Formats: sequence, structure tokens, C-alpha cells
Amino acid sequence: MIEWVQGVLEGNRRALARLLTAVENDRPGAAEALTALYPHTGKAWVIGVTGAPGTGKSSLVNALAQAYRKRGETVGILAVDPTSPFTGGAILGDRIRMRDLSGDSGVFIRSMATRGSLGGLARASRDAIRVLDAAGFDRVLVETVGAGQSEVDIVRTANTTLVIEAPGLGDDVQAIKAGILEIADVLVVNKADRPGADSTVRGLRMMLELGHPTTRQIVSHHGQMMETEGAPAAPMDLGFWLPPVVRSVATEGQGIDELVQAIDTHRDYLRQADRLQQVERQHIELEVVDRLREALLERLFRQLSRADFDQLVNQIQERRLDPHQAVHQLLELQTLNVAK
Amino acid sequence: MIEWVQGVLEGNRRALARLLTAVENDRPGAAEALTALYPHTGKAWVIGVTGAPGTGKSSLVNALAQAYRKRGETVGILAVDPTSPFTGGAILGDRIRMRDLSGDSGVFIRSMATRGSLGGLARASRDAIRVLDAAGFDRVLVETVGAGQSEVDIVRTANTTLVIEAPGLGDDVQAIKAGILEIADVLVVNKADRPGADSTVRGLRMMLELGHPTTRQIVSHHGQMMETEGAPAAPMDLGFWLPPVVRSVATEGQGIDELVQAIDTHRDYLRQADRLQQVERQHIELEVVDRLREALLERLFRQLSRADFDQLVNQIQERRLDPHQAVHQLLELQTLNVAK
Repeated sequence: MIEWVQGVLEGNRRALARLLTAVENDRPGAAEALTALYPHTGKAWVIGVTGAPGTGKSSLVNALAQAYRKRGETVGILAVDPTSPFTGGAILGDRIRMRDLSGDSGVFIRSMATRGSLGGLARASRDAIRVLDAAGFDRVLVETVGAGQSEVDIVRTANTTLVIEAPGLGDDVQAIKAGILEIADVLVVNKADRPGADSTVRGLRMMLELGHPTTRQIVSHHGQMMETEGAPAAPMDLGFWLPPVVRSVATEGQGIDELVQAIDTHRDYLRQADRLQQVERQHIELEVVDRLREALLERLFRQLSRADFDQLVNQIQERRLDPHQAVHQLLELQTLNVAK
Repeated sequence: MIEWVQGVLEGNRRALARLLTAVENDRPGAAEALTALYPHTGKAWVIGVTGAPGTGKSSLVNALAQAYRKRGETVGILAVDPTSPFTGGAILGDRIRMRDLSGDSGVFIRSMATRGSLGGLARASRDAIRVLDAAGFDRVLVETVGAGQSEVDIVRTANTTLVIEAPGLGDDVQAIKAGILEIADVLVVNKADRPGADSTVRGLRMMLELGHPTTRQIVSHHGQMMETEGAPAAPMDLGFWLPPVVRSVATEGQGIDELVQAIDTHRDYLRQADRLQQVERQHIELEVVDRLREALLERLFRQLSRADFDQLVNQIQERRLDPHQAVHQLLELQTLNVAK
């Protein structure tokens, strides 16, 4: 596998595809390859694209990729589907929609679905983003389907996160907005030619105002700022980032230039002072903690006999022990084992 | 807190509300109270209700609760919102929609939103379900908003899981169906008076067929079975459970009797042989593993100095160490510490 590393660094697409498969399935040797690639990472600008079903994420990713290609930048696309553990339906759909991009050697598209645990998918996406980064793509677009913690975890490694909305998606879409608004660097109201677009834009601005104390403060002092549509023309350094709301009709290519501009503005913002370093640090801490959690569990189960575990489960089922007490006992057991 | 335990067992609503708050926030003493209540659990039938946004889950929970009340059964409702870490919007909405039920002493409604990690929410929901169970409610309805791994984790403790769909929810709703179909014991097509209901029902049946090898087999042998609408009139023991597809218009009370029947049929099915014990065992194993994962991490961070951790993060950021290697080092460090 280590021989593919050189290929990936030289831009060999076959080596790239093979290594991604190995990384996705956590094959032996994948960890070493990632270690070897790691010093070559940190150059790509990683853009996370997320939002509720029906917002047109795939079309938007498609349009964004084409816009970057026109500027001469190379694009790696990772479509991650945390909602689909056993069918490949959505992934297939994405691929079909992305046919405009295939055949272009400056674009590389990869799909990933849930295999085993969601934690495993977050780990695999992070590693895959890193491989695409080391392979030298200028932009890495990470698209996730779904609406919940899943994509929050997956887009967490992105440098700029786009949250996509669309008008008229039913009554409790509001609930979703609240959750993912927190992770948005740029908000996109796609399908903006549909009725209700104005009210979606207004709703998002209201929620931005409710959600972010700093924003609320600014808004009360400079009410007009929230009225600015699209991305600000020049980077404004207010000491914090106010997510712009961009309107688009991705299938018609409308609003894409504004979106590209908004992403660049966000990049410029992060590159000021040592913000990018700070954000990267947070990402690294989260990643180490996630990996540690899994590694610790794995280690404990290597030390624990199945019989001991089954006995505890029996006691819980017979209501002689509760799960909290059981965990306590397991921890003590491990301490004894390690100390031996 | 332990004094509330007696109150909860005696049906005191104030004690119940207080204990739930303590459990939700993991206050000191909550673990002891849960241990004391644990022997009194395992009597309620826990029904998980989940599905994509806009399917009318809250109305359905409302209608189900009213149906159970008419049969003289008591109902605890837990509305969990994994998508809303900082606003209470959806929860408020649920409460308003549930006003038909308030004032009835045989119903207890509780909302819960994300606080901190999603893992924390899954833990808190599990504990809250257990408290409602010990409090003697015949049925515990657990409703979750969202669409992804989040609610899979939350409804995992349910005895019967309902997955709600509705006609005409946009193009990539398909993706969501695939993911949550796996956890469905009963499928509900709500808002079945809307155009497209027939095609939603057909789509679900097709996906059931695609997803479950056993079903596929049965379908090819007894094609007519998949044509049965609603729940079968009598429990059929085929050796596996074929999720029925029930149509409803919850706001009009249509299809609710059929749904109640389908849930009872599923309960009868699980009560045959030792299926219920087996399912419970799986739930317990998952719970122990989840709790263990968090407890192990907590213990490691108690043993690790902030300076050591920061140093590792620095090395990763400077690309001198990759996250995989870092985790390795941390594990070794702990082994040394414990062995000391």
C-alpha cells in the first residue's frame, strides 16, 4: 500500500482510487500510508456542504465544482451518506447528477456510505479528505446527506461549511435549521426561484440573530448589516464571522459566483491573525478524542473475556445490576488487569 | 434525590418531574436514584416514533396517546430533539400540539433537547425512558425529530419502533428511508390523504423488499403477503417480523386503530419464544458499550495532564505526528500510568 503513496503524491488517479478504498475499509497498511501522506496535507481548502433532504445539495456541489474548474482550480469531491447503511440509492443518484464533471481530469469524485458504525464513517471521511488534500486538489468538497449530528461530525473537518436550505420544505424544517445553523459559515437558500424564498431568507436571518449572541449585538447596533444580501464585497474584520445568506438556483448556475465569493471571503477572514491555526487545533483535538474513544474501547474488549461480559449482561437483564454499576465494575476489572 | 424515588414509584408527578430533570442533567445522586429504580423497570411497552421532518410525527404521537387513554392505559411521552442544541423551537411546537393531552393525569409529557454531546442525549433519553417505565406508565412513547444516526441511537431502546413517512417530501427523502427502514418494526404513511400516498406506500414496500433478504424470499414465494395493507389481523409467526405498512391521517384520527393493532401484533410477536429477552439483551449490550466508551475516555483524561495533551496536538498541527500515532502514544502512556 505504501507504494500507492508515491502515486497519490504524483497525481496518479488509479493509486488515489485504490488508496481511498483501502482507507475507507481500514485495511492493513492504511494507517502507515496515512502517516506517510500526513506531512503533505493542509494545502487544500476543504468545503463542507450540508443541509436537509430536498435542498439540492448535489446540484450545488456540481455547480461549485464547475465554477472552480473555470478558474483553473482542481477539485476533489467526497459524497458521504450517513443515512444509508445498506442501500446505495442516494450515492448512485449523486453520481448520475455529477456526470457533467466526469471526464475532467481536474475533478475526482468519490462516494462513501455507512459501513458499520457512524463513528467509523466520520473516521473514514476524515482520512479520505486527508488523502484528497495530499493528492494536491485545490478544493475538496464534502457533501453529506441527512440532518442531524451525523453530518455535523463529518463536516467538522471542513474549513468552510455551507448549510443549504430551500423554500417550502414542510413545517418542522425549522427544527433542523436550529441544529445545523451553528456550524454554518455560509448559508445558501437554493431553489431561490421557488415561492417562499424571501420568507426562508428572512427565517434564516432571524434564527442567526436568535442563535448567536455576538450577532444579536451587532444587529442591534448596525441593523442594516443583516440586510446585506450575498457575501460582503470585501473581507470585513469585525472580530467574528457573520454568516452571509446567499441565494442560488444551482441547476441554472444562478448565485454560484456569489457563493464562490462568499467562500473566498470566509477563507480570507480565517487567514487573518491566527484564526486558521486555532480552528485547525480544535479539529485536531476533536479527532484525537474521537479516535481515542474507539481505541480505548477496542483495548478493553481485547482484555475482557466474552464470558465475563455475558455474565454482566445477564445480571443487568435479571435486574440485579444496573448498567451504570456494570460499567463501574468493568473499569475496575481493567485497572486490575493492566496493573498485573 | 433518593427521596424522590419513592415518590416516583407511588405516582407522584412532581417527584417524577424533578427526578427527570436531575437525570437529564446528570446531577449528583441521579445514578443512585436510577440504580434504586432499575428493579422496577421492564414493564412498560416502549414505542419509538421517528421519521423525516414534515411527516407529522407529533400529531401521530398525540393521536396514539389518545387511543391508549381510551383503552384505559397510561402514557408517558418523551419528545427528544437531537437536532436542536441551542434553541427550543421544535420542543415548544410539540408542546403546543400536545395540548389535547394536558390536564389528563394518565398522561405525562416531557421534552428533551441536545445538551452537550449527542452521546449525552442518548444516555439521558435511555435513563428518562427507564424513569417513566419505573413510574408505572403502560406505554412510553419516544418521539425524535431528525433523520440520521441520532434517532437510530435514541429509539434503539424501544420495544416497537414506528418509522413515519409522508407523501411528497422531495427527491432525496429516498436516502433517508433507506437508513431508517432497518430499524422499523411498523411503517406508517401519514398524511395519507395527500396526493402521492399510493406511490409512497409502493416505494416503501419496494425498499423493504430490497433491504431484507428474508423478506425478499418470502415475497418471491408469497407475493400476495406484501399486498396486505395495515397490520395482519392475527399474529402470524413466520419466524421473522415483516414490518406492516399502515396508512394514517393522524390529525383526523384515521388509521390510528390499525396502528394500535399493528403495535400490539408486534408485541405479541416479540413475546413468543424468547425473542423479547434476546432483543433486550442486545439493547443492554449496546448500552453498556456506549457508557463504557464515555467512561474510558473520562478516565484517561483524568490521568492525562493538559500540557501532555497540548503537546501532542502541537506536534500534529506541525505535521510531525499524525493523529493515528498520537492515539497510540496516549494509550501507551495510560498503560504506564495505571501500572505504576
